[in-house]
Amino acid sequence: MPAMTRPPLTPLAQSLPASVPFVGPEAQERARGANFAARLGANESVFGPSPKAIAAMREAAAEAWMYGDPESHDLRYAIAAHHGAAPENIMVGEGIDGLLGYLVRLFVEPGVSVVTSDGAYPTFNYHVAGFGGTLHKVPYRDDREDPDALLARARETNARLIYLSNPDNPMGTWHDAATVQAMIDALPDGCLLVLDEAYVELAPDGTAPEIDITNPQVLRMRTFSKGHGLAGARVGYAIGEAENIEAFHKIRNHFGMSRISQAGALAALKDQAYLAQVKAQIASSRSRIAEIARENGLVTLPSATNFVTIDCGRDGEYARAVLRELIARGIFVRMPFVAPQDRAIRVSCGRAEDMDLLAQHLPDALRAAG
Amino acid sequence: MPAMTRPPLTPLAQSLPASVPFVGPEAQERARGANFAARLGANESVFGPSPKAIAAMREAAAEAWMYGDPESHDLRYAIAAHHGAAPENIMVGEGIDGLLGYLVRLFVEPGVSVVTSDGAYPTFNYHVAGFGGTLHKVPYRDDREDPDALLARARETNARLIYLSNPDNPMGTWHDAATVQAMIDALPDGCLLVLDEAYVELAPDGTAPEIDITNPQVLRMRTFSKGHGLAGARVGYAIGEAENIEAFHKIRNHFGMSRISQAGALAALKDQAYLAQVKAQIASSRSRIAEIARENGLVTLPSATNFVTIDCGRDGEYARAVLRELIARGIFVRMPFVAPQDRAIRVSCGRAEDMDLLAQHLPDALRAAG
Repeated sequence: MPAMTRPPLTPLAQSLPASVPFVGPEAQERARGANFAARLGANESVFGPSPKAIAAMREAAAEAWMYGDPESHDLRYAIAAHHGAAPENIMVGEGIDGLLGYLVRLFVEPGVSVVTSDGAYPTFNYHVAGFGGTLHKVPYRDDREDPDALLARARETNARLIYLSNPDNPMGTWHDAATVQAMIDALPDGCLLVLDEAYVELAPDGTAPEIDITNPQVLRMRTFSKGHGLAGARVGYAIGEAENIEAFHKIRNHFGMSRISQAGALAALKDQAYLAQVKAQIASSRSRIAEIARENGLVTLPSATNFVTIDCGRDGEYARAVLRELIARGIFVRMPFVAPQDRAIRVSCGRAEDMDLLAQHLPDALRAAG
Repeated sequence: MPAMTRPPLTPLAQSLPASVPFVGPEAQERARGANFAARLGANESVFGPSPKAIAAMREAAAEAWMYGDPESHDLRYAIAAHHGAAPENIMVGEGIDGLLGYLVRLFVEPGVSVVTSDGAYPTFNYHVAGFGGTLHKVPYRDDREDPDALLARARETNARLIYLSNPDNPMGTWHDAATVQAMIDALPDGCLLVLDEAYVELAPDGTAPEIDITNPQVLRMRTFSKGHGLAGARVGYAIGEAENIEAFHKIRNHFGMSRISQAGALAALKDQAYLAQVKAQIASSRSRIAEIARENGLVTLPSATNFVTIDCGRDGEYARAVLRELIARGIFVRMPFVAPQDRAIRVSCGRAEDMDLLAQHLPDALRAAG
């Protein structure tokens, strides 16, 4: 037998670390040797999906021997109708993460500049690095993404993509529709705004600019993972101008969608009454988190999402200690990565019992963090 | 408002067609205005997944608000144990299609040669084209993939990847383990064999070479879509040498797996008794398809898969007409794309009622095809 010589990765792949944008809570549970008592770290919806979505997925489970419809026809048409757009303006994909991967692959190669905020969504950065793009970051301003700075950096670097999440993750802050629309109107030629609206159903009215499917410079990302409570089903969609949407067909995994997930998302979309009920629960939980923080002498940031950022009032080292102490007490939370936003921890909304656990353990965690 | 200038795709993306490797049966049903009476075209398992897998997915549906474990820990460990490998030798992904996409991305860029058989899996070719690789194809030999020709072409073209499906799709034919092992032993330096074993659980004992997790020149692809009846769940896995497996972490969608699908696959893997029962049903259906073909004066190829290739005995034009006529009668089937294999149609195994429909309509379809 000849010697076995390893096939070489591409130079780009060789240059990439075997990185993980996020460590999952299950891995942390395995490391702790105990499950979390409250799962409040991944901005999942503890309130769960619509009972109608659960029922639809249970029914679809027996049909899982069939591939999902590669065109996601029924779901795509329903999403289009929901937004008053045409099916040609909608691309259904494997969560926003999956769609961001396709999007970056379509537009980014070595030599291409991309602009984002320092501390914004790491998975987007992961995709940009993965396709060899050059990331340029601008700081947050008053704990919000800074449209003017993003635009200015895009002009300086001749960027092809700008990433903006509105409402923002990890801070929970947001801009109103007029501000985002002004940013859209000011985009440099040939620059695409990737407008991540994962949380927008949970934001005040007037947060989302009107959908304009004639503009080839904006792609909006939506998901069933947050308000609709289907993070584990992996269904997101892009809304955009038809030729941009069509480009996804060149590279996407046509048979990538779970048939069960397609059924669940369709039922969830149709149950807007349930979504409204979840929004009310989230609003109540946001208030409760703020109240718990106040009781501990801490301030929270206003939030248009299903999480609240608690300013721990000192530096990143202290906030990381608070995070560690909460995790040690069975409360799974996460926090911003980058200073000065890393002075805060990020707590997802939860049920009354989750909030009670937070209220119970936060004082001890703060004491232990010193 | 300034003029809106479309952001340019990468030159590679621009060069790609908005192609679809396969048109789904649902799209055909929409075009026909009627559902298929027998769904025998996509090599799905009409026998369905294990009832235990269905139960596990139904239970997991209510937990779909949680992201799936990005490490697919429990499933990965169970797969490793099943194969007597270590978890470091297993990569779970979004079906073989998804894993092939990652694999090609890791190893292929413009200028890289890849060898496959002319008429083999189009989705693999789609990925190679999508990452700018150069595909070299060798013909089938006696309706089987031709290891010697694949190796020779790989040496000629300095190929980085060779694709071999064993058993083969779309013909259903196979090589024994010794032949595949000889091919592995003869791989040129730096060339990786992508051994697609999607159907191997359904093949005779002695089809799969022993798993050697020390060899960095072989990556084996397995799936829950075929024997396990979970095509719609999108779960596949790669088995390979640890450093190759580790490379997937550089680029994969870490949170890409459906939580429901992870639960279903784990339960399916544990229910080997059900798999054995499905194998018996498939064997019986293979015989029935052969019998139906014989009754119509046609010959079938031996099959180690959950489908049977029926030689229509004339040219591609005739076989395509037979296919059309079956589809017009509500029997969804597919066929090989490339001559001379396109003289055949490919019929997935089914229940007795599916076979009865085939028996009922095939004579008329043959007559109508002229």
